[in-house]
Formats: sequence, C-alpha cells, structure tokens
Amino acid sequence: MGLSNGMGKIISLCKRRGFIFQSSEEYGGGPSTYDYGPLGVELKNNIKELWWKEMVRLRDNIVGLDSAILMHPRVWEASGHVQSFSDELVECKRCHKRFRADHIGARCPECKGELTKPKRFNLMFKTTVGATEETGREIYLRPETAQGIYVDFKKVYETSRLKVPFGIAQIGKAFRNEITPGDFIFRTREFEQMEMQFFVRSREAPKWFDFWKKERMRWYNNLGINTKHVRFREHQKDELAHYAKRAIDIEYKFFGEWKEIEGIHNRGDWDLSRHSKYSGKDLSYYDDETHKSFIPYIVETSGGVDRSLLAFLVDAYTEVRGGRTTTTKSAKDTEIVLKLHKNLAPIKVAVLPLVKKQPLITMAQDIYKELRQRWSCQYDEVGSIGRRYRRQDETGAPFCVTIDFNSLEDKQVTSRDRDTMKQERVPIVELIDYLKEKIE
Amino acid sequence: MGLSNGMGKIISLCKRRGFIFQSSEEYGGGPSTYDYGPLGVELKNNIKELWWKEMVRLRDNIVGLDSAILMHPRVWEASGHVQSFSDELVECKRCHKRFRADHIGARCPECKGELTKPKRFNLMFKTTVGATEETGREIYLRPETAQGIYVDFKKVYETSRLKVPFGIAQIGKAFRNEITPGDFIFRTREFEQMEMQFFVRSREAPKWFDFWKKERMRWYNNLGINTKHVRFREHQKDELAHYAKRAIDIEYKFFGEWKEIEGIHNRGDWDLSRHSKYSGKDLSYYDDETHKSFIPYIVETSGGVDRSLLAFLVDAYTEVRGGRTTTTKSAKDTEIVLKLHKNLAPIKVAVLPLVKKQPLITMAQDIYKELRQRWSCQYDEVGSIGRRYRRQDETGAPFCVTIDFNSLEDKQVTSRDRDTMKQERVPIVELIDYLKEKIE
Repeated sequence: MGLSNGMGKIISLCKRRGFIFQSSEEYGGGPSTYDYGPLGVELKNNIKELWWKEMVRLRDNIVGLDSAILMHPRVWEASGHVQSFSDELVECKRCHKRFRADHIGARCPECKGELTKPKRFNLMFKTTVGATEETGREIYLRPETAQGIYVDFKKVYETSRLKVPFGIAQIGKAFRNEITPGDFIFRTREFEQMEMQFFVRSREAPKWFDFWKKERMRWYNNLGINTKHVRFREHQKDELAHYAKRAIDIEYKFFGEWKEIEGIHNRGDWDLSRHSKYSGKDLSYYDDETHKSFIPYIVETSGGVDRSLLAFLVDAYTEVRGGRTTTTKSAKDTEIVLKLHKNLAPIKVAVLPLVKKQPLITMAQDIYKELRQRWSCQYDEVGSIGRRYRRQDETGAPFCVTIDFNSLEDKQVTSRDRDTMKQERVPIVELIDYLKEKIE
Repeated sequence: MGLSNGMGKIISLCKRRGFIFQSSEEYGGGPSTYDYGPLGVELKNNIKELWWKEMVRLRDNIVGLDSAILMHPRVWEASGHVQSFSDELVECKRCHKRFRADHIGARCPECKGELTKPKRFNLMFKTTVGATEETGREIYLRPETAQGIYVDFKKVYETSRLKVPFGIAQIGKAFRNEITPGDFIFRTREFEQMEMQFFVRSREAPKWFDFWKKERMRWYNNLGINTKHVRFREHQKDELAHYAKRAIDIEYKFFGEWKEIEGIHNRGDWDLSRHSKYSGKDLSYYDDETHKSFIPYIVETSGGVDRSLLAFLVDAYTEVRGGRTTTTKSAKDTEIVLKLHKNLAPIKVAVLPLVKKQPLITMAQDIYKELRQRWSCQYDEVGSIGRRYRRQDETGAPFCVTIDFNSLEDKQVTSRDRDTMKQERVPIVELIDYLKEKIE
C-alpha cells in the first residue's frame, strides 16, 4: 500500500470516528491546519502525558517549562532563524505561481512558463504587536519551542537548584509558514512539539547523545510501535544544521516511506553562546565544585506530537478480512481494528447493554459510572451488539464490557478483548481489579 | 493590602520559586507574555487536568476538542470579530502616544497635549500565510477558542452520536493585541482558555444557564477557593455583548479588587446561525424524535486558565508571622505558606534526609523513587531541615517526609503536614497508604 493510498484510509477513519478533522472545513479549510476531535484529543493528551511522565516526573534531573509562543524578536536573530530559516522559491513569470526551488525543474510545472531566479523566503509567521501597524513592533510566532528553554535556562536551574547534567522539557505549539505542507498531519503550518534540552559538560555530550538516542527509541517501542517500522538515520556532515555537531533522526515507515518523527541533536554551545552575546546577559553555568563558569553543551530530543500520533495511528491500523464480528457476512468484507497500545487508547473500556432495554440499561449505566471514575470510558446502547463491537474496534478501545440478561441473575458481565476477541465472564465485584490488571 | 502591593508579593514568590517568569526577560521582555517555570507548569497542568476530568470524563454528554489556532479568515467575519472586536484609541497630537479612549480624559496624561478623535483598533493579531506577503492570504490568530467548537459542531455530534443537550469542551491558547495588558498574568496578549459550549433547545437555555452557573462556582469552591473571595456578577442589559442574551461573571477578589475569572453566557442561536450563513453549510441539528431540524441555543462556560491559576495562587498565599520554622528567629519575621488544595499542588510530597549523610541519603532516595511512581515528588538534601521545610511551604507541597537516624532502626519516617505543621511517625511500609488517604 503506497503512502497516498494508505494515508487516505487513515484520513477516512479519522474523520469517520472523530479523531481528526480538517480545520475550518466548512469554509474550505484552514491554512493547512487540523482539529483533533473527541477521540483525537484524548489520544493526543495521552501521548503528551506519557511523554511528560517518562521525561519529567520519573527523572530527578529534568524539570518542565511552558514558555510563551510570542517572544522578544531578538530571540530569533540570536537563534539564526531571521537570517537562515528560509526556503528558496522561484516564481513562474507567466502564471505567477511560486514553487520551492529544490522541488522543481527549469520550467513551471503548471503552465511550462519561464521561472525567475530563486529568492529566499523566511518560514516564520510575522505579526505586529502594539497599538497600530505603523507604530507597532514586528514579532514572530515561534517556529520551535527550544529557544524558550535556552532563554530561561539560567532562571530555571537557579530556582530549581539543578546541577549539570540536567534537562528542561517542554510541550507546546510552534508555527511554520511551510510552502508545501502535506501528508495529512505530517507537515502542517501549526504543530505541537515535545522537546527536552539536556545541559551537559562538553566532554560528556557524546555519552549523553547515545543515552538519549536509546531512551527515545525505547519510548516508541514501549508504546507498541513495531520495531521493524522505526529506525535511526544519522545525518551526514553536509546535512547538519548550522548549530548541530551531530544529529540522528528517528524515522517511522509510513506505508513504505521512511520519514522523521523525532530528532536527537548535539547542539554544542551554539545556543547559549548566541543568547549570551545577543542579550548581553551571561548565560553560563557556575560550577560549585570547580568554582568555574562554562557554557554547557546541549543534547536535544525534539519530537513531533502530531507526527508521533500519526505514527501510532498508522502502526495500529489493522485490516481484518471477513467474519470478525457478525456485521461482516462475507469473507471479502474488511473490518478495521485500531490496535493502539492500552496506554494510548482514547477509550479504555466501552460499556454496552446487550440490547437497549431495561433493566439492562440501568445496570450498564451504573457500571459505566463506576468505571469512568478511573478510566476514560464510553457508554453505547445504539445498534446491534455486532455493530457496536465493530465501532469500538475502530476507536481502539482495548476492552468492551457487555451486560446481558444473565448478568441480572449471576451478577457477571462479559469482557471482550479487542485484539484476541476472547470473551470472559467476570463477576461485577471483581471487574475493576480485572480491568486494572489489563489496562494499567 | 492593595492590588499592586499584593500582586508584587505574588510576582516575587513566583519568580523566586520558579512558578512564573517574564517571557524573554533577558531581552527586555516579550510582548506582555509569561513563561511558566518548573512549578508553574505543573500547577497549570493540574488545573487543566482537573477541569477536563470534571467537565469531560465524568460526564456522559460532553466530549473534548482541540481545534487549530489558525483558522479560515471568514470564521472571524461570521463571528463578528473582524467588524467589532476592537477598542477605541486616541492619539496625542504632541507626543503621539496612544491610549484607550475609555481610560482617558480630554488631554494626554503624559504631556497634556491635545488628543485626536477616537479611532477603532482591532484586537486580533494578523499574519500572512502562503508564499509571500504580496500574494499570501491574511489570517488571524484566534482571539478565543469558542469559534473552533462552533465550526466543528456538526462533525463532532455526528461522529460522537450525541443528542441535544450536549457539550463540547476545549482547552487552548488564544491571542489578543491588548492595548493595556497588565496585572501580571491577569491580562496578557497570549493566554489560555478552558471553554465548554453546551448545545440546548431554546426553551431549556435558562435552566441550563442556572445549572452551569452553579456547577462552575462549585468547581472553584471544591478546589479550596475561599467562598468569600468569589461572587457572581450579572451583566446589565447595556453591557451585554452583541451575541449574548444573558451573561454572568464569576469574579475573584484580588487584593480587594473584584475581577472576572470566568463567564457564563447564554449566546442564543447567534453563532451557529452566523456560521450557517457565512459558510453556506447547514449547521442545524436534526432531531431524531420530532424529525425536525433546528439551530440549538448555546450556553457557554468560558474560563481563563491563567486567571484561575492566579486566583488559586493569591487565595493560597499566606503570610505567617514568626517562629513557624526554625529559620525565623524573631516574631517579626514573616514566613510564606502556599496553602494550595492538594489536587492543585505542583509537588505533592517532598522527601528530605534529615542531614546530607549516608545511609540516610540512600534510604531517602529509595523512598522518593517509590513515591514518584504515583505522585509528583521532590527530593531535597541541600540546607538545614528548617530551611527546607520553609522552601516546601513556599512551593505548597502538602507533605514533607523526613528520614532521620531513627528511621534506620525503626523503619519509620516523619510526615509533616504543611497546614497544621503536625508531625507524625509513619512506618515506611504504610507510607503509600498513609499518603494516599491524605492527598488523593
């Protein structure tokens, strides 16, 4: 299955089940932006919370930050973005359409007209702050979250009394005026990053680079990504960004095409040196033990929330032919099962009365209200039980709990496992412990 | 204590303990934006998670959404923001400074110069998307999250199979080019909203308005806000926004000044009617039972994440005179205790070896590693125990657990309660259950 064909199926599922919609679709679409629907926002929140727990809460030497999107404009001069965060564009002299110079031949691909010479185009969104456009100050929407961490580096380590090596982690939105957004939520103009900047002594940077490279790969594997669908790709010397001493991508194989979902970078002392110079404030680190100050090296892990969400979705997407539920009568029919890791699944348990009748409804709702205190749950009474199982397979709920007429007498319910389709009778009094073991 | 004096103390604590910093401070500050430091981001995340659990997870009829900041520009024509989301400004003819017309007299407050006539100034941030500023399309940073919910209304209820009355909830950033930002994080140009839009039959709107008014006040009270520091304020007819049929603010008393932290609004059918008209798409709701379509009324609860965070901080801020810890020798010394509700506290438990010596350190770290699996914890071994208690009182940690030399023999630790300062010996094997009861 090729990329566009495969992605088409993912887009269709996402729209049908309320994971992801095109933004402002009713108006013809936003500027290549997307909205996360009821299931999408839960999945996204799960990814962010799992990352935060793994990177911040369970580590002594990493703290969090949530810095502003709108920063002082000099930040982006110091970072190099004003000067060099740009694409080369050419314009067709006949139809005036513009294209990325590196994506094009000698003639306009649309009308075969002659092209202008390439011209630099900065990818940062600009806006004006203050009373009027004439007297206001030009500022940018941040194109990455990292710079907020560097600028606050000193205040964070002083107030948190951290010692090198330590890290600062952040999750937040960033914006890039991409010329060629595409591949659904893979390349959009508004996106979310989860970044961790780790501050180390220069001689220890290679060691920490290797450490974080392994840690980050382990994270994807622990969340159920097929190990054959992820790989490292080391940047060659001529690919390295101006700030990078070494860079490795974690790539996911999207329907046959390898694409970056996270980068691990050794940024050296570039960032803190530049901010010290441009702000005129000393951003070096004072070492209590040696009584010397130095600019730490930075090893960064920079992941895309949307990109990893897309990788998790694609990896979980499974087509099963024939007869899985009673709704598929022919062996040719295809059913979709979203085999998301239990920690990622937006709904953990669906609670279903076998039929929409009392007293099954009341019994099912009581169980639902009990379970949702602990997990994200869904109650569903609409349609045949086969159709409801099929629906829950598509939303990725790891377990369905069904209440039938026997439940009224034996006080047991049927638990159905999404992946094995195994059904088990479980006493209601033991249900929470049973599910706790399965999904926590 | 007046507003500016009181707020000064809060700002100072926030900076000292790493709750909140001015954004890009090293460069002279961002455009009235703030960064949440290690403790601030945890506090903010707790507020957002508690709101989400209360408004989405524990209710059958409310689902979540996370819509894009950058939408199609027509959205803001339909919403009325392009036409009327503006302030009137006057300019001094002599010094050319600008002021809000409603904040000023007949002469310039700075140089006493003559003022121009008032001129409208739109509060939305504008930017350009696409290849160049000449050929690109003008778009806006959303000034509120609500419109994303309205535009997606139909897709959300269809994919989630919801029936009126139901709600859609969202947490996200919004941006306003305020002329007079101020009062710390109370009025900033970049801020976060937590909004819930509840779709109802028109005749039921007054009933739901009253329901949500009570529910939202209960939320603040349940999280420990002093009931004397919050009140309702009903908008008079001439104050109502163009879309509002009725509006009530929840106000918090910030050092003697009542200010809005959340609004409950009956918006009627204004929003969905306008989007139907401007998009040309039918955004009415189809009623299965009556087989009729209608435009639902909307009752909205619109809260500020930053404003409620500020209210929680101010309400928790307590000055205690003299002798609370051993670090204050004189009765004149003041100690600060941040009496945050346990669910809000960024750090739930601080783990402290009595002195920085082995084997106390190892024992304390083992306990810390065990506890952080369950709660956000902090390990601290630096300074006298009195100073460390004082520090934790300022961060608002509800409990400190101290490991002393007796602990090595009797396998018990001392638990100290932030508010009562009561100390109890607790066997280590019972520590998790003991704390579970106190902080969950």
